[in-house]
Order: sequence, then C-alpha cells, then structure tokens
Amino acid sequence: MSDPIELHRKLHGKLSVVGKTRMKTMDDMATLYTPGVAKPCLEIAKDRSLAYDYTMKWNTVAIVTDGTRVLGLGDIGPEAALPVMEGKALIMKQFGKIDAFPICLAEKDPDKIVEIVKALSPGFGAINLEDMETPKVFHIEKRLTEELDIPVFHDDQHGTAMVVLAGLYNALKVLGKDRKAKIAIVGAGSAGSAIAKLLHAAGFSDITVFDSKGAINKTRNDLDEYKKELAALNSSGFSGTISDFRGADVIISASKPGALPPDAIKAMNKPNIVFALSNPISEISLEQAKELGIDVFGTGRSDYPNQINNALCFPGFLRALLDLRVKKITVEMKIAAAKGIAESVKDPTRDRIVPDVFDRKVVKNIFKKVKKSLSS
Amino acid sequence: MSDPIELHRKLHGKLSVVGKTRMKTMDDMATLYTPGVAKPCLEIAKDRSLAYDYTMKWNTVAIVTDGTRVLGLGDIGPEAALPVMEGKALIMKQFGKIDAFPICLAEKDPDKIVEIVKALSPGFGAINLEDMETPKVFHIEKRLTEELDIPVFHDDQHGTAMVVLAGLYNALKVLGKDRKAKIAIVGAGSAGSAIAKLLHAAGFSDITVFDSKGAINKTRNDLDEYKKELAALNSSGFSGTISDFRGADVIISASKPGALPPDAIKAMNKPNIVFALSNPISEISLEQAKELGIDVFGTGRSDYPNQINNALCFPGFLRALLDLRVKKITVEMKIAAAKGIAESVKDPTRDRIVPDVFDRKVVKNIFKKVKKSLSS
Repeated sequence: MSDPIELHRKLHGKLSVVGKTRMKTMDDMATLYTPGVAKPCLEIAKDRSLAYDYTMKWNTVAIVTDGTRVLGLGDIGPEAALPVMEGKALIMKQFGKIDAFPICLAEKDPDKIVEIVKALSPGFGAINLEDMETPKVFHIEKRLTEELDIPVFHDDQHGTAMVVLAGLYNALKVLGKDRKAKIAIVGAGSAGSAIAKLLHAAGFSDITVFDSKGAINKTRNDLDEYKKELAALNSSGFSGTISDFRGADVIISASKPGALPPDAIKAMNKPNIVFALSNPISEISLEQAKELGIDVFGTGRSDYPNQINNALCFPGFLRALLDLRVKKITVEMKIAAAKGIAESVKDPTRDRIVPDVFDRKVVKNIFKKVKKSLSS
Repeated sequence: MSDPIELHRKLHGKLSVVGKTRMKTMDDMATLYTPGVAKPCLEIAKDRSLAYDYTMKWNTVAIVTDGTRVLGLGDIGPEAALPVMEGKALIMKQFGKIDAFPICLAEKDPDKIVEIVKALSPGFGAINLEDMETPKVFHIEKRLTEELDIPVFHDDQHGTAMVVLAGLYNALKVLGKDRKAKIAIVGAGSAGSAIAKLLHAAGFSDITVFDSKGAINKTRNDLDEYKKELAALNSSGFSGTISDFRGADVIISASKPGALPPDAIKAMNKPNIVFALSNPISEISLEQAKELGIDVFGTGRSDYPNQINNALCFPGFLRALLDLRVKKITVEMKIAAAKGIAESVKDPTRDRIVPDVFDRKVVKNIFKKVKKSLSS
C-alpha cells in the first residue's frame, strides 16, 4: 500500500466542487446568475419538486457523520472523520456517478443531529448516515426516515447487510444449502443487527444474535428497544455464548478480533460458511480459516478472497434511490439490491461469492433489481 | 440573454462534486479509503489543524442561506434559493478556484441557524452567508463571527460595500474629489448599512443614511441596535427625506426602483456621483442619468457602464481569507480589498471606475492587498 499520509497531503483534499459549465461572457453570467437565475428560482418557489429539474438536488447526497464511531477508531471528532467521508464520496462518484458531499457535525446530541439534517435536507436528494455510534444512530435514522421526504440510508447497517446477504445467497448456492440454514450472528452493533433483520426479512428463519454478554433472547432484561427486536428473532430461545452454540451452518461476525473463538467454528455443521467482517483485522485469519476447514470464508479484507465490501452496494443502491426518486427505503429494495449484487457473479465458487468492486455490472444490476422491486 | 429555464434544465444542476484522483486498483482504494485512511484520521484527531493539510477543508466554503431574501424575490424558500447558491459557487470556482457548496436551510430561526452553521463548520474553511433577511442576518453574522474560528462573510453586506468603495475611490479620483465628499446612502438593508459603515471606516466623514422613513438620526425612536449604529454616523443630525437633502457629492442607493427621486439628484453638488444599485432594475435608468447630468453613474447592471458587481469582490476576498488562513475578517482587510479592486483599473474614467468581472488581475490584486494589510 502507498503511504496514506503522503498521498493525502499531496492531494490536499480528495474532492473538488466544479462547475458543469463555464461563464465566458456577461450573457452567460446573466443567465446562470442574476438576473436570469430568478426564473428557475420562481418556478421552484411555486413547485418545490422542480428543484429536481433545475438544480443539483437530484444527484446530490449528504454524507453525514458526527465522528463518534469512525472506522474502528471510535470517537475521533468531525474533523478527523473528514478523510473517511471524502473517501466515501470518491467511491460514490467513481462507481455511482453521484455528487456526494461530506457533512461532518460538531454535534453529538441525536435529536439535535436530526434537526440539523432536516434543516439542510432541501439541497440534497438523499442522506447517507456514516460512522455514528449505536444505538444513537438507530434513533437518528428512524426519526429522519419518518420526517424527511428523501431517502435516509445508513450504510454501516444496510450496506453491510445487503452485501452479506448477497454473499450468503451465493455461498449457500455453492454448498447446496438454503434458507433453512442455522445462522449465528456475532455482534449487535450497526452491522450485526441490520444483517440479522435483513436475513430474517429475506426468509431465513433460524437466526441467533450474540452480543458481548451472549445470545440475545427474550429472557434478558438488559435489552434496549433495538436489541429487543433481535431477541424476537431467537426462536429457539438459546441463551449461551457463541462458544456454546452447536450446529450452525453459518456464522457471521461483525465484531472485533477475538470475538469468534475457534471452538465456536469447530462446533459448526459441515459444510459451513463463516464471514469474519471486523476491519482492518478480521476475527479469523485466512490461515486459521484453512486450519479450521471453513468451506466458504468471507472477510472485509481486500487481500483475501470473498471481500464483503460495502463499496459493492452503496454506489449502486444510492444511484437507484436517486434515479427512481425513492422517498423511503423498504426491505424489498434491500433484498432486491442483494440479489443484484449476487447475480453479478456469473458462476459463484467457494472463493468467489461476491463480485469484484471494480466490476461495473454491479451498479447496473442493483439498479435493475431495485427498479423491478418497485413494480412488483 | 439565453433562456435561463432551458439552460438550467439542460445543465440539471450547475455544480458537480468530483474526485481529485481515481481509484484504479484495490491498493488505491486501501490508501484513499479503509484501512489506509485511518492514518490521516488519527493524525487529525491529535491535531485538528491538520485537517487543513489532509482534507478539502482549506479550500471549501459553505454558501449558507435560509432562502428568506433571495435576490429581490423575497422569502422563496431554501429549494428555490438553490439556483442562486449554485451560481454563486460557480463564480467562486471560476474566478477564485474555490470549492464552494450550497447549504440551503429549512430553518428560519436565527439562533437555530447559528447552531446549525456552527455544527457543520468543521468541514469548511469559511462560511459565506447569502440572501438572508435583515436584521436577522446581522445577528447571525455577529454570533458566528464571535463563536467560530473560521471567517464568516456576508457578501450582501460586505461584498457590495467593498465594490462600492472601490468604485467610489476611482470616481472621486476622476472628478478630483476626496473623502470630504458629502454622501447620502439610500437604503438601510444589508448593502446600505454595510456601505455606510465601511465608508466611515475608510475615513469618509459626512455620511447620511436614509431608510423608508427618512434620514436615520439619533432623534428617531424606532431604531433597532443596527440602525442605531447608522444614526451615529449622521453627524449633521439631518432629519428629512432624500428629496429634502441638498448638496450631496455622492448618492448611493441600495434600495428599489422609485426610491431615488429625480429631485434628490437635481439638488446635488456638481460634479456628482450616483450609484443606483437596485437589481435587476436600477433606481435610475441610464437615460435618466444622462438627462439629469450625473457625472459618474454606476449600477448593478451588466448592460450599463460601471457595473458595481459583487463578483468583482467575493472570489478574490474569499480566496485571500482561505489562503491567508484568516480567522476573523477585519475592516482593514475590507478596505485593502477595495483598494485592490480599484487599482485593477489602470486609468479610470467616468465610464470605467471598476474593472471588468472577467479581468483575472482582480483576484490577484485583492489577495495582495489583503495579505499586505495583515502585516501592517
């Protein structure tokens, strides 16, 4: 890898705001700025939806963070979050042709964040929440989704969940298994909880979610409203730790190194599927995965096969939200997007359950599937 | 003029957010995004000022409006303000190489606007307030200037005032007059009040400001805190209307058509200077100006000589604020910028008191003068 510090210093910011046209004459200026610009302004004043025709709104996404949970670095503040948000915008542009702009907030109160995002929403076609603490971000996402008329997407939850579901579709196909698979999910943060809920919505029926205290089930009295939703998925009522869990076909860990002990993997059914999504160091290394005889192994790492990378999802999914003028994201759209990603791999194998990030088909396939989901 | 509606529909937004680099390999992605991006993030977390080195902050300006006073159109709302803000950003880019981004707020409460702008300030190098009602915007500007460590610029006030001062310097030079000139200012909104204060700071001593009720003076009991500042400039204590005012060398009107009656001009000293800045229709037409024998006549119009156009100022002034890492704007910087604009006209004449908007020297001259003002 090149030196990130050197490259960031050289680039001096990864994004630039450019004009789509150049003013060469006073006539150009009078048409694009005052007095001519008054005409589109007045039309939009009469009908707000015309902002989608005359302005950048239709293609513009706010990448909003408060810097409280940046990558695995924790609460590093809004300025320090900026390089990540710029990187995210870069990916949205390159893969999704989206005009994305970082909004890094010096505000941590969830309801104030909601008010701020609502206030700045008129200029945007969609909101992407990024790298914010749970459970706060669930509250922010819920309120914004209810109160705004543009889609609100939390990539750490739903982007991850869609790519996991895509990888799972192909992994199950490769191994000849199906939705009756017994699934353990380790980690109940943004990723873990969203994966559990999306898999359930996609028809998987045997899902047990583990947090640091063990399996989340209805008998626990330490659960917030969000974890209670996960407890409802635990149909067997299992109450031990992941090391005690027997006979899983699939383990998906979205936690941290050490959270997935080898014993838990040894107790799985065969053939088996393990996604170890912690980043940059996965819970299980490729070497360990081979020793443990894992049949399909996926991680977030680019130097391993089967990279479960959000970049497979968010450019295409946001592209679809914008182009289809979606107001609220539904679970059907997310399942459709996962299928679009999965079907981008023509002949999946154990070492190829998800497409390459640079594969241009992925964005198109997500768009097609999401579009189709709207009419069905 | 081309058809603004057609052009705006065709462009479908005047701005685009683009990457300054392209990711070709996984290595590129790993350096610009996760995991490599963690390195600049962690350095900024230790020292926030490094955001100026590793991110877009150094060159990025938020153009903030609440849509309450857009052009001369009044309160048309944040969506309808967007075409103007995009146009402004376009000009900042083309002339000042600035990455400017529109922030159109669905929030009208001044203190809430302050909180919002403060919250989103970490990603920006400067704030440009735009097209907001007075006196609310004065309060917002004051609080933000006090509470933020990046410069806060209200172009409708200070941009206009700097270009007026620049034009006035050259007009007085052409007519052989000086700072003892008797000046009337018609209009006490953003432009009028800022012009009055800047001219006073620049050493002009005989300034009378008129609002719709007549001259603003200390005997009036209907003045808010901002108009009281203008009353303090009225050293003669004059209390009539602009039509009653005799012997002005200069009248600057930043009001609306009809606000500047021909009688007021007939009562001026000779030779005289009139700036009629209402836009798009100036208070006095070029034909009337000729009939009335005005010696130096300036307007905001591009089809007349002597266009007092803010675009002469804000790209260069913001460029200087960013490059010189200014934290708070001072009156010395504004006077310096006005001199930079004025001196861009090599040999001023009655019909050429300000430079052409497309003259690339202007931005450089403003930068040089503002830089020099910091060291003096």
